[in-house]
Amino acid sequence: METVMERECSALGGLFQTVIGDMKGGYPVWDDFISKATKLQSQLRTTVVAVAAFLDAFQKVADLATSSRGGTRDIGSALTRMCMRHRSIEARLRQFSLVFLDCLINPLQEQMEEWKRAANTLDKDHAKEYKKARQEIKKRSSDTLKLQKKAKKADVFGRGDLQPQLDSAMQDISDKYLLLEETEKQAVRKALVEERSRFCCFVSMLRPVVDEEMSMLGEITHLQTLTDDLKALTMDPHKLPASSEQVIVDLKGSECTWSYQTPPSSPSTTVSRKSSMCSSLNSVNSSDSRSSGSHCHSPTSHFRYRASSSSSSSVLPQQTPARLSSVSSHDSGFMSQDAFQSKSPSPMPPENLQ
Amino acid sequence: METVMERECSALGGLFQTVIGDMKGGYPVWDDFISKATKLQSQLRTTVVAVAAFLDAFQKVADLATSSRGGTRDIGSALTRMCMRHRSIEARLRQFSLVFLDCLINPLQEQMEEWKRAANTLDKDHAKEYKKARQEIKKRSSDTLKLQKKAKKADVFGRGDLQPQLDSAMQDISDKYLLLEETEKQAVRKALVEERSRFCCFVSMLRPVVDEEMSMLGEITHLQTLTDDLKALTMDPHKLPASSEQVIVDLKGSECTWSYQTPPSSPSTTVSRKSSMCSSLNSVNSSDSRSSGSHCHSPTSHFRYRASSSSSSSVLPQQTPARLSSVSSHDSGFMSQDAFQSKSPSPMPPENLQ
Repeated sequence: METVMERECSALGGLFQTVIGDMKGGYPVWDDFISKATKLQSQLRTTVVAVAAFLDAFQKVADLATSSRGGTRDIGSALTRMCMRHRSIEARLRQFSLVFLDCLINPLQEQMEEWKRAANTLDKDHAKEYKKARQEIKKRSSDTLKLQKKAKKADVFGRGDLQPQLDSAMQDISDKYLLLEETEKQAVRKALVEERSRFCCFVSMLRPVVDEEMSMLGEITHLQTLTDDLKALTMDPHKLPASSEQVIVDLKGSECTWSYQTPPSSPSTTVSRKSSMCSSLNSVNSSDSRSSGSHCHSPTSHFRYRASSSSSSSVLPQQTPARLSSVSSHDSGFMSQDAFQSKSPSPMPPENLQ
Repeated sequence: METVMERECSALGGLFQTVIGDMKGGYPVWDDFISKATKLQSQLRTTVVAVAAFLDAFQKVADLATSSRGGTRDIGSALTRMCMRHRSIEARLRQFSLVFLDCLINPLQEQMEEWKRAANTLDKDHAKEYKKARQEIKKRSSDTLKLQKKAKKADVFGRGDLQPQLDSAMQDISDKYLLLEETEKQAVRKALVEERSRFCCFVSMLRPVVDEEMSMLGEITHLQTLTDDLKALTMDPHKLPASSEQVIVDLKGSECTWSYQTPPSSPSTTVSRKSSMCSSLNSVNSSDSRSSGSHCHSPTSHFRYRASSSSSSSVLPQQTPARLSSVSSHDSGFMSQDAFQSKSPSPMPPENLQ
């Protein structure tokens, strides 16, 4: 009987050791995880910076479309909405990389020290208890062996008088084995709980990261309507919208008109002269002066503003306030350009002919 | 009359020049966009590499849980599913960075050369035509002026005979102005269409990128059920699942048992000895031999396999085939470890006591 019980206790002890060994053998895996997560996190951080710079450039393209002479204002507004949605995605990505560090990488690194201490304590305590129990059983066993020999010798003279003592000793060993088995089972359970709680702890650290990841999804879902808007607006690149034709019509009745600037004969200087004119226009536009005196184009730009607002507000009502402010700021930029243009002296005034 | 028409034609010519100027002034904006997009794309490419390395490390953590002695196999399976879903996200991210380069950055760069050529051609053609038309009108105007003077002088002698000629000349100038106005309107429309078609072209290049971005969303949506699974599994870290208790129960009736290995007295060598034992266990596990002779733990592992399959197959049926293969490969790994463990000579065989 003792051989079977001995084997079972040893098996439980072996299982305990293997579980502890597994935990200790897992440290390089956890270390590798922390190292790769740290690298990914720093990569995400620099990606966020690149995304921010990209979106700045994207917004400038959208502004280019919005501040044009009337042919692409609608596309500019849609591109601005697309850009703003990506700003939200950028913010989520930034938040994601922060949570990745603060909720997973750093706490896991701290937790690992705790894990190492806990496993060592479990192992040491178990080894001490197991050794003590086994030594006690061993001593009782050899005592019982001696008692058995004594009983065999005593058998010749007066048999039955050592049997109760022998039975009691055997029972004692059996009880001690049962106790050891129960202790070992508890130790195995403790080790399994320790092992499981590590993964539970890991999952609890992982969850806010995945939550943050999923909240990026909330931003991405809105992209569908935005890309549909853009598709509809750019369906036919060679058809001008009504607002573009309006620019030509408005020009006729307007008091402040553009005037043709005779280009010099050399084509190369034409380009440089034009571009310098454009850069001065752009500088006026970027200063975004709302105090320009002449507001001759106001009716037209208001017409356009209302038209674009009513056509797309039903699709994305939550975007309306932000988009309106962007459009109105460009309206002001548009007007200040007109004012600048109307004030510039014409190199070929209409009066010089007749 | 001519003064008004002159002014209107000049205004249209000025508008044309401004639209062309806007397009030319936009080149630095497009260049900046391409530059920032290129930087972001290369950043995304290195991020994909970091994600792949991170997921390798993540999978090893999942394997650690799956290949444990029974306490965390369920968590390991859920972590493996989480990891596999992120592999799909990684693949989408890789695809996204490719599409970003192939569908947006490279074509846009090529398109810009085309845009520059087109704007220069528009500008040159317009300047030539405008100049020619204006010179012709100027000549007719001065001819008409001479005719008017002649008519005034002729008025003294015989009045009416030059009037029809004068009327015809005036009508001719008026017609020429109307023609110029129409030509200028067409030129402005052409310029506006050219400007608009650039943004349409840009949007058409942007769309596959946004589509790819949104298809990442399809992968992310599945994360919710996976994180819910993990949350449910790790709700109580200190409660062992039935399968863990089964490991202890199975140990009793099993033919091939673990055995306790007496640790040496020094605690430091204990750790190094354990970890070397574990690494040899891991190497057996990673070789994933399915041809291990001893299959003593088969019934237990099959029980666990069926239990975990039925408990979560209703939640994620589409994941079943992949997960099953992962679990079964780990079952095989688990068994080969058992075989290894049962074959290892015990330093304290149960026979050496009694």
